[in-house]
Amino acid sequence: MGQILALDFGGTKLTAAVVDTAVYQTGDLTWGAHRRLYTPPEAEAGFELARMVALGQGVLAGGQAAAVGVSFGGPADYRTGTVRLSHHVTGWEGTPLQARLESIFAAPVRIDNDANVAALGEWRFGAGRDLADLLYITVSTGVGGGWILGGRPYRGQAGMAGEIGHTVVDPKGPLCLCGKRGCVERLASGPYMAADLAAASGQEGQTGETVARLAAAGEKTAVRILERGAWALGAGIGNAANLMSPQRVLLGGGVTKAGRRWWQVVRQTAQAAVLPQIAVEIEPAALGDDGPLWGAVALVEELVPDLPAPA
Amino acid sequence: MGQILALDFGGTKLTAAVVDTAVYQTGDLTWGAHRRLYTPPEAEAGFELARMVALGQGVLAGGQAAAVGVSFGGPADYRTGTVRLSHHVTGWEGTPLQARLESIFAAPVRIDNDANVAALGEWRFGAGRDLADLLYITVSTGVGGGWILGGRPYRGQAGMAGEIGHTVVDPKGPLCLCGKRGCVERLASGPYMAADLAAASGQEGQTGETVARLAAAGEKTAVRILERGAWALGAGIGNAANLMSPQRVLLGGGVTKAGRRWWQVVRQTAQAAVLPQIAVEIEPAALGDDGPLWGAVALVEELVPDLPAPA
Repeated sequence: MGQILALDFGGTKLTAAVVDTAVYQTGDLTWGAHRRLYTPPEAEAGFELARMVALGQGVLAGGQAAAVGVSFGGPADYRTGTVRLSHHVTGWEGTPLQARLESIFAAPVRIDNDANVAALGEWRFGAGRDLADLLYITVSTGVGGGWILGGRPYRGQAGMAGEIGHTVVDPKGPLCLCGKRGCVERLASGPYMAADLAAASGQEGQTGETVARLAAAGEKTAVRILERGAWALGAGIGNAANLMSPQRVLLGGGVTKAGRRWWQVVRQTAQAAVLPQIAVEIEPAALGDDGPLWGAVALVEELVPDLPAPA
Repeated sequence: MGQILALDFGGTKLTAAVVDTAVYQTGDLTWGAHRRLYTPPEAEAGFELARMVALGQGVLAGGQAAAVGVSFGGPADYRTGTVRLSHHVTGWEGTPLQARLESIFAAPVRIDNDANVAALGEWRFGAGRDLADLLYITVSTGVGGGWILGGRPYRGQAGMAGEIGHTVVDPKGPLCLCGKRGCVERLASGPYMAADLAAASGQEGQTGETVARLAAAGEKTAVRILERGAWALGAGIGNAANLMSPQRVLLGGGVTKAGRRWWQVVRQTAQAAVLPQIAVEIEPAALGDDGPLWGAVALVEELVPDLPAPA
């Protein structure tokens, strides 16, 4: 019994929340306290860590955490507790984040990357409950994925499994920063779709939201770019389903709010890509922006002593 | 202790072998008896089953099997013990093969598709020993795969995981019988490469072997077709490695004998396709044509009473 502290290091924001195990185990997914902070573009690792510790101490309000679960927005190794790098924030390379936080909060800590943690959250509390095999994909500023296989997280070598965003669906497609052409992230992520719309229209200041809004209004270039993104994601999911045949694929992240047509293209493309014996069930994730936080809770709940049986 | 009967229903051949658990557990991978039969093109399921039973009874030589492991060359469901279909032989659809063989051999039986079984064989006895996470791929008349994840077979929904052959690597590529363009099997399998060489050269009677032989002699069309196949396989492996990050990828099947250059292109393409934090180790399978048979042994060894601990 006790308080679980959940920390989410996002690309542009930090979130801390605390939940009492006696409360959420009853099925009531309400945080005891929840605080979010948007970080300035020039933030580096030391700044983020200091601010996150302050946020965490704030939500604990003088209380003691029984365990601390951490979602990190970039490659982080669950087994070593170390951040490999951040794509957004400098200075994180090689940081032993688990050990640092264990020292600060005097509690056991586990870290994992945001997609793995969100997959765990959806499986434990969201749209993937009771499933053995699940692929969670976030489609947002990047495209990342996490697996639950055989009823437990599957992380692969060095925690790097789930990188559906960098699987290639069109080898003659546009070049991604990762060095490859036509990977899912290059075609389906919000910033890349926005950049393609800006390049095609000559108008700066596009975002993933403007692509979706213009497409909904029938603007032809926006429709083409959004549907190409949905096609790419569907093709990537089809390949993943042929390889792994999971029971369900859950999609979260801002781009999933792009409307009915986007979902239709994703689903049709994925189903057309798999062998007839394979069914692909693609559904929205249920936990929204708090998915990584709830996953962070799930990541450490077994470390909390005398936890009652799940309701 | 006792005899394990291993049966391999291949596309064009049937193989039965028997091994004494007391022998192979010492590390001696020698069959007690081993018989193979090539089936005529007009063979249907009833004929194959009858001939396989005779082969099995032959290798048992009047003895009793403690358990029977079965590799089936097509979609077969381990959990239900049922053959879903055969791509090569008519009449197999829905056959409860496990129950039929249990009745005939009066012993517990387990069945699985050939790629899953071969993956298990390599993991238990071959080039994947002691690995937690492994992808086995056969590159032969078709391209199929099987997973070991977390130290146990991973089969996905209805046993359909591992279909790397029907992942798409070039959406503008040539059309496959599966209905999609540019899937790995369409580009990398022996018969399709042979068909492409026949179409390009106007000369009938090509096989996967002639493609490899002509390519080794520097014939430009054969080189192009073989290297395109190696590229397709490498691209498919790269996508699979981004998704799952296994410790090792093992390749078996006739096409893997196509020479040094083929291996080089497969490996280079796969490594170029993955994120820098992911290493892809691609090695030849060790068990050759007997891989599915040894996998069939591994599939049932836990069913044999009083099995001594592994050597």
